[in-house]
Amino acid sequence: MTAYSATVTVRLKEGVLDPEAETTQRALERLGFELDSLSSADQFEIELDADSEERARERVTEMTERLLANPTLHDYEVSLQQR
Amino acid sequence: MTAYSATVTVRLKEGVLDPEAETTQRALERLGFELDSLSSADQFEIELDADSEERARERVTEMTERLLANPTLHDYEVSLQQR
Repeated sequence: MTAYSATVTVRLKEGVLDPEAETTQRALERLGFELDSLSSADQFEIELDADSEERARERVTEMTERLLANPTLHDYEVSLQQR
Repeated sequence: MTAYSATVTVRLKEGVLDPEAETTQRALERLGFELDSLSSADQFEIELDADSEERARERVTEMTERLLANPTLHDYEVSLQQR
């Protein structure tokens, strides 16, 4: 078994409204900052043991699809590193 | 002016409790997944124009310290790319 560390980034699909990000952008503008856009994403860092990188990636992808992301609303990326 | 894209990752400092991440980890375990740990972070993607990479980084760092992160609770990282 090898120890892996996975980073899962879950963001809203293009076109899905994100009122929280809009509010944050407006608050920054009210503070005097100039920016073109702001979007937000959730990141999960998961440590797990697996027989191979492929198995680790499969399991993290399954965790993401079952619980961490909603495939109707979100896109996600999984990146893996050996610990 | 050059167009930059900044990624700000805001995570709880070591030792600060994260009940949401604990609940997520427990929910995954209840679904039958084995994992050693799970932590979560907020990620912001900010697009802005600036005269130089240094100026862009300064502005994004100031936005983070004034609004996106609470220095008592959070650590943060800023990474920058030219668009």
